[in-house]
Amino acid sequence: MKIRVAKSAGFCWGVKRAVNIAVEAAKKGKGKAYCLGELIHNKREIERLKALGMDFVEDMEALETGNTVIIRSHGVAPQVFNYLKEKGLEIVDATCPFVKEIHDKVTKLEKEGYPVLILGNPKHPEVRGIAGHIKDPIIVNSLEELEELPQFSKLGVVCQTTLNMDFFRKAVSLLALKAKELKVYNTICKATTVRQKETRELASQVDVMLIVGGKNSSNTTKLYQISKSVNERSYHIESKEEIDPSWFEGAEVVGVTAGASTPQWVIDEVVDYLRLLGEGGNWSGRGVCQAAGR
Amino acid sequence: MKIRVAKSAGFCWGVKRAVNIAVEAAKKGKGKAYCLGELIHNKREIERLKALGMDFVEDMEALETGNTVIIRSHGVAPQVFNYLKEKGLEIVDATCPFVKEIHDKVTKLEKEGYPVLILGNPKHPEVRGIAGHIKDPIIVNSLEELEELPQFSKLGVVCQTTLNMDFFRKAVSLLALKAKELKVYNTICKATTVRQKETRELASQVDVMLIVGGKNSSNTTKLYQISKSVNERSYHIESKEEIDPSWFEGAEVVGVTAGASTPQWVIDEVVDYLRLLGEGGNWSGRGVCQAAGR
Repeated sequence: MKIRVAKSAGFCWGVKRAVNIAVEAAKKGKGKAYCLGELIHNKREIERLKALGMDFVEDMEALETGNTVIIRSHGVAPQVFNYLKEKGLEIVDATCPFVKEIHDKVTKLEKEGYPVLILGNPKHPEVRGIAGHIKDPIIVNSLEELEELPQFSKLGVVCQTTLNMDFFRKAVSLLALKAKELKVYNTICKATTVRQKETRELASQVDVMLIVGGKNSSNTTKLYQISKSVNERSYHIESKEEIDPSWFEGAEVVGVTAGASTPQWVIDEVVDYLRLLGEGGNWSGRGVCQAAGR
Repeated sequence: MKIRVAKSAGFCWGVKRAVNIAVEAAKKGKGKAYCLGELIHNKREIERLKALGMDFVEDMEALETGNTVIIRSHGVAPQVFNYLKEKGLEIVDATCPFVKEIHDKVTKLEKEGYPVLILGNPKHPEVRGIAGHIKDPIIVNSLEELEELPQFSKLGVVCQTTLNMDFFRKAVSLLALKAKELKVYNTICKATTVRQKETRELASQVDVMLIVGGKNSSNTTKLYQISKSVNERSYHIESKEEIDPSWFEGAEVVGVTAGASTPQWVIDEVVDYLRLLGEGGNWSGRGVCQAAGR
């Protein structure tokens, strides 16, 4: 039994950067360091960070002056930023630079007179943060909603960094007939593109596929959907504890990938456990494949 | 047997306008009136115009000073315009205003720093005219060619006014992943959109479909392709002489549409001939359907 881990599994550059910034702020920030919302959508990493002295609040009004507040990689609306500033909190901004670019883009599109459409989940903090930068954002998350849109003389489009590429393509194809002038920024971040592509490839080559990451992580859920669409035996797990050995019956190769918010140590735990299961004689082969693994 | 003629069949506004301008120039222009290239891609209309005293030349160097030259609805590159001007010809510009808008758009896109891609047939005079307005046009006419394009950081897109809408949609969908920033002008003209949509609908409702127009007319050929894709019994004819009565065996309803360059009198001749065939007892019903006909 072979285990093949996707090269792109786990933290993207922006998340790694945010975690490093947050850990630093927890050590050196003024007062106690609070992260506004979960730093990353991963319960187990959140627990690890709490152990380092950081805390997490959903409600910014609960924050008291004299402390440090960390803006996570998803970014926030300018109104949120200003509120925190006026409250006298020390702000540590860990917004992903790629997300910041989207903020600049929607602002520019609005200035150029384009109504701005954001392709993404309206409840996702990244999308809420982007939307907060413009007056009348149109947020759309399905082809059905897109079809119901009226005709536009001009339209500007950006998307959530973790959007499914296929949805993006189909959406732009629909919008091409909805607007006489369409200005589209493909703001799916490269890490997402690579991770989705690799997941699709790996899932089609293995017998069983494990997608590791928070059940509340948007990008992990998308990886699971992509994997499931090419391999029925795909499972979305948060940690090794959820693994059911019966999943691997008759399997010769197991693939593993993980979302942008899944820490390396969680992936390692899963791989170690799979190796153990393999050694228990459940599988015909064993060992992590060196070619695609790390 | 019923005959249903598409409402949108025949001359579009831009072609009607160009023919009127040309006829006027033939009457009142300086010297003899020459049209640079066929005024419209329809042999029979060309013959009618020749009878009015107009002539047609393919090679602009053949034109002699002191005469009138008509720029047809397809438009020309600025270099051509300037050449004719310097040669002392009286220029009557019948370029379709919608095509002129595309000239302005590609010029603007180039000024804004976008490489400009034109979706359309590189040999079509309209496309050559558009391309002549910019330094390095990229002209693409198939999805295969599009797939071979490299990645762009930014890309501007326009299209031939008579482009197939489905091709446009698919092309934009592909380009969405080829460029980080994509600015698309949907320059398919409304007459084309309506005519293609109506052709598809009519073809799916009738037993036999006739598409009337020049075999060298790009937009008529596209109508034929659309019709053929939904109704196997589709025929592209230039005039009533090409009609084979056996086409209508067992047919109860015949649909008729025509390209943007097909004169009304050519359509009328076809419809009259079909009516005659119907009266001959080949069909079960007769008469032109009033609902969709004209």
